Amino acid sequence: MSTHETRHEVGLKKLSEFTDTNSAQSTHDKISESLKDIAPAVGEWITDFAYGEVYSRTGLGNRDRALVTISTLVTQGTEPQLALHINTGLTAGLSGNEIVEAIMHLVPYTGFPRVLNALEVAKTVFAERGITVETE
Amino acid sequence: MSTHETRHEVGLKKLSEFTDTNSAQSTHDKISESLKDIAPAVGEWITDFAYGEVYSRTGLGNRDRALVTISTLVTQGTEPQLALHINTGLTAGLSGNEIVEAIMHLVPYTGFPRVLNALEVAKTVFAERGITVETE
Amino acid sequence: MSTHETRHEVGLKKLSEFTDTNSAQSTHDKISESLKDIAPAVGEWITDFAYGEVYSRTGLGNRDRALVTISTLVTQGTEPQLALHINTGLTAGLSGNEIVEAIMHLVPYTGFPRVLNALEVAKTVFAERGITVETE
Amino acid sequence: MSTHETRHEVGLKKLSEFTDTNSAQSTHDKISESLKDIAPAVGEWITDFAYGEVYSRTGLGNRDRALVTISTLVTQGTEPQLALHINTGLTAGLSGNEIVEAIMHLVPYTGFPRVLNALEVAKTVFAERGITVETE
Amino acid sequence: MSTHETRHEVGLKKLSEFTDTNSAQSTHDKISESLKDIAPAVGEWITDFAYGEVYSRTGLGNRDRALVTISTLVTQGTEPQLALHINTGLTAGLSGNEIVEAIMHLVPYTGFPRVLNALEVAKTVFAERGITVETE
Amino acid sequence: MSTHETRHEVGLKKLSEFTDTNSAQSTHDKISESLKDIAPAVGEWITDFAYGEVYSRTGLGNRDRALVTISTLVTQGTEPQLALHINTGLTAGLSGNEIVEAIMHLVPYTGFPRVLNALEVAKTVFAERGITVETE
Repeated sequence: MSTHETRHEVGLKKLSEFTDTNSAQSTHDKISESLKDIAPAVGEWITDFAYGEVYSRTGLGNRDRALVTISTLVTQGTEPQLALHINTGLTAGLSGNEIVEAIMHLVPYTGFPRVLNALEVAKTVFAERGITVETE
Repeated sequence: MSTHETRHEVGLKKLSEFTDTNSAQSTHDKISESLKDIAPAVGEWITDFAYGEVYSRTGLGNRDRALVTISTLVTQGTEPQLALHINTGLTAGLSGNEIVEAIMHLVPYTGFPRVLNALEVAKTVFAERGITVETE
Repeated sequence: MSTHETRHEVGLKKLSEFTDTNSAQSTHDKISESLKDIAPAVGEWITDFAYGEVYSRTGLGNRDRALVTISTLVTQGTEPQLALHINTGLTAGLSGNEIVEAIMHLVPYTGFPRVLNALEVAKTVFAERGITVETE
Repeated sequence: MSTHETRHEVGLKKLSEFTDTNSAQSTHDKISESLKDIAPAVGEWITDFAYGEVYSRTGLGNRDRALVTISTLVTQGTEPQLALHINTGLTAGLSGNEIVEAIMHLVPYTGFPRVLNALEVAKTVFAERGITVETE
Repeated sequence: MSTHETRHEVGLKKLSEFTDTNSAQSTHDKISESLKDIAPAVGEWITDFAYGEVYSRTGLGNRDRALVTISTLVTQGTEPQLALHINTGLTAGLSGNEIVEAIMHLVPYTGFPRVLNALEVAKTVFAERGITVETE
Repeated sequence: MSTHETRHEVGLKKLSEFTDTNSAQSTHDKISESLKDIAPAVGEWITDFAYGEVYSRTGLGNRDRALVTISTLVTQGTEPQLALHINTGLTAGLSGNEIVEAIMHLVPYTGFPRVLNALEVAKTVFAERGITVETE
């Protein structure tokens, strides 16, 4: 971490690399907005700790971090967050096709139910962003 | 899938790309061996379905598939399989450092306990393969 | 597996044993339809691998497989799939009463929350199929 | 357990300590009502076993039991039951602030997704009961 | 429940139907013994509530209840209890082959890792009871 | 957070409130020591983020935070961390009896398996610290 930046600034900058599109940005903004009335510190932890400290480490690139994030969220079945991170994953360099392949790859590890539910979430996000995937 | 190969042959070939080292191979062999007396069909499903159909799709490379696999196994906390797939991940092109970073990246999504247990597993596999990671 | 049938044909036939009613069929069709635009291979895996290879094994009957399937889905809390498989379970020979008893049996193993949510799903499916259960 | 009371009576009395407000009562009543047509015994188990035997033990007070209950439900991600038990927790002596702090405390153990979804549930319950939390 | 029996007596009788062999009995006894020093009420709840109220309901037979129990424990990955209930399942009328088939049936729903770990547990229990399974 | 302390210092101080006994301290030290060779930043996140930011918030006391922590770990089934936090819970003001009651309270929410495994862990920790619990 540069000595001239606080981790909050580092976090905001890193976050913008994942949300620099209308769709990802607006999804993330809705989360922060909703936290304001009940637990604003959680919003700060997301920026300062998750993006400022974890995501900002140099040993793995943004695209790979998005792949790891999508994989854990499919496995947990936490769909609102999966929608957000399919969005941030597209912004961070994953193609729609790669995201679909990653979800499909999880069938032998999580079984079909989690995968089917995740593909539904992906369809909705892709429709919002006007993304079509090639199917084979 | 080539028309000249059955999915079993495709699966064996794909599997070898992930297990072409003494350590990964011997870990995988132990699983197949153990299945023989009780449920040999499960061993065939792993080769024919998991490796022959899922892993063999072209839309995502071996290294990325290893990253997705490690992420789901850390999240599930299934440690024997995590040990195997840290092994196959190393063979498929992930560095020890990238594996550690991927596990660390999961802290904001799974919390510390799963991550701490996964890092213990990684340490054991790295020691067996004589891999050292740079820490920062 | 008969040498005169491919596993796809075996899968379709087995699948029809579980979906041979308007309600189960239409639920299953909706899943396949939805997969077509995004991941048609997953639909094929369900027919060819899940029904053609796993469900088609002879060591356990359709009714018992439905019981196992409902039990894992209640435990995972994946409700859209639970609705489908309460439907296929009814078609495969489980009575509404047996399904309710199986869900209730899970209280000591999963706790009340998963069971309460599963009973809500069962109520909806039973209402759609015009099934009433005797309560004691 | 007093020799003059059955565990059903003990359970009803203990339950009333957690649901003695319009909001908690009506949420609990909806569950019992819904169980009547499909599995009334589960409703009796909740009163007689959960409240009559488990909750009625003397080694831990009502407020602490509510804290334990909320923590497991956030971890499991079972949102309908979390809504009920944020309600019963408020009735049993937890403040809105303490509930928010308990949910926030889970970030290092469950990660952010479960916590964000739980805070949404808390917001809805607090709004229904006219509770405001101080944020810092 | 007969009016001449308490639920404790009903529970003990039902429990004996599942543990009436040296191996299942001794596994269950070890659990009760271990609970005595720390939480004897939990041992009573298992007999009185789990066996006396849940298992004793008439709508589903012992063998089917064992199938449901094994399915949830494979899904949860709680291996000490899985070992116990593979044991009780054998006593309650499931064959070794049926247990293996039920575990294998879970591959499309839980993925391979949980299934592989459960098959290891089954192997150990079968060896202790001198059971061999036919593999195909 | 006092302006005269960094969050690392705040974290160390807070951590010491939970580990100020030989047993809890040595368990925590083993974790930090083990992380040094593979992922020292995770050890820093535990001190700086988990203890320095989350645990240090004023809205919930140390004892209550220990109760929440134990509840989530029983639910997740992550036993090495459960052993640590039964230890820190004892140091933070929970009695052995309260810890046992909290674990028992989870039966209606997680089912018996997680609870039985957690009680085994508690027995081991209590034996190490020479703690006896009154059973009723």
